[in-house]
Amino acid sequence: MSNGKHLAKGSTPPVLGNDGKLRLYSMRFCPYAQRVHLILDAKNIPYHTIYINLSEKPEWYFDKNPLGKVPALEVPGKENITLYESLVVADYIEEAYTDKQRKLYPSDPFKKAQDRILIERFNGAVISPYYRILFSSEGIPPGAITEFGTGLDIFETELKTRGTPYYGGDKPGMLDYMIWPWCERVDLLKFALGDKYELDKQRFGKLLQWRDLMEKDDAVQKSFLSTENHTKFLQSRKSGENNYDILS
Amino acid sequence: MSNGKHLAKGSTPPVLGNDGKLRLYSMRFCPYAQRVHLILDAKNIPYHTIYINLSEKPEWYFDKNPLGKVPALEVPGKENITLYESLVVADYIEEAYTDKQRKLYPSDPFKKAQDRILIERFNGAVISPYYRILFSSEGIPPGAITEFGTGLDIFETELKTRGTPYYGGDKPGMLDYMIWPWCERVDLLKFALGDKYELDKQRFGKLLQWRDLMEKDDAVQKSFLSTENHTKFLQSRKSGENNYDILS
Repeated sequence: MSNGKHLAKGSTPPVLGNDGKLRLYSMRFCPYAQRVHLILDAKNIPYHTIYINLSEKPEWYFDKNPLGKVPALEVPGKENITLYESLVVADYIEEAYTDKQRKLYPSDPFKKAQDRILIERFNGAVISPYYRILFSSEGIPPGAITEFGTGLDIFETELKTRGTPYYGGDKPGMLDYMIWPWCERVDLLKFALGDKYELDKQRFGKLLQWRDLMEKDDAVQKSFLSTENHTKFLQSRKSGENNYDILS
Repeated sequence: MSNGKHLAKGSTPPVLGNDGKLRLYSMRFCPYAQRVHLILDAKNIPYHTIYINLSEKPEWYFDKNPLGKVPALEVPGKENITLYESLVVADYIEEAYTDKQRKLYPSDPFKKAQDRILIERFNGAVISPYYRILFSSEGIPPGAITEFGTGLDIFETELKTRGTPYYGGDKPGMLDYMIWPWCERVDLLKFALGDKYELDKQRFGKLLQWRDLMEKDDAVQKSFLSTENHTKFLQSRKSGENNYDILS
């Protein structure tokens, strides 16, 4: 991952030359953007990273993506159209790079659909209560912690049923990488809940083993940030400072 | 489409025999379920329809789908796992039935990704304000009508840019079918807005031409309901009666 700074209002679009590499518009701490980093890194596809300041977006960025969001992917030769929506971009990369690169979805369409359903369920069952806990302005909303645990139960059970170290089998697959960014950030909940918060080692035994394995994965290592660093950014965000370059 | 009644609490699961056909759990007026009907009908795949009463769900339905939602698809030989989430199910059918059936996505992964982005955008830009207008309890929310029009502008422009009668080219494709159910129901807005509401014939010229063509499509015809019939169900829903069998 590049160590570049986040480009802001008043900046000029980066000149990258025609080296045939993909260009990923990203934000260093954005879990949705991280999904695309993970897929590109898992498949060893070379790419440029261009970091965008999401509070003070560069004027030129809206020409790239009308919604002004990250991640967005620019494909050489197709500069006038940028792809966005993290899951769509991840699936695009999976489909466009199938020849020599590692395959991340099961080949069986039925099994692939099951993985995609779980990615959707993670969204409603885990990510949604996670953010409600983290960004509640008036105390933790009632039920959100229970809901978060019940959401994780689904994924604990699934890993048990599959009987493999990763959802993808012996290696992480699409489902592993699509849910990883929030699992990397799970200890941020201590920020909202204090030290009383700890994932139950019995209830989430398989998930915790999986998390330890995932942390060592080569692709994860390339974009990995410690809880300490995630917390630094969260504090900066909560203070209204939004210092995207806090680690530079 | 079957003319069966909607199964409710206290019912027994239907016995369908092992005829190898897919089983689609649906609700007659549900636009998300209609997406899957459209894809199965466009590909001429035979299937059973089992209608579910969503206000008084059959107890046994939660064994089929833990979320209790429609659409859900049961594949012969895999009865213990039901697929759900309309877009995931539609994509599954597209991938699992590729040999003899009509292909609904572009073959080029980049073009396919563009279509999937537009399906996602339709969700936020059109469906979201549509429901806010239709189900607002305290008058129409400010900005929702403007937002709805701006959302449709994206799809009017896209059709102009593509220069084809359908988003899919000379025939409807996945994007056409995924957005159709709400286009079929667009005149329901008169229910909320009164007769003052009419889609501007100049501003939405291409879209209105497309709507006329889509209405005549064989697959659309199989699940099509008139605005009058959609309105009957909406009135029943708004009154709290929820008469799913209003057309039976």
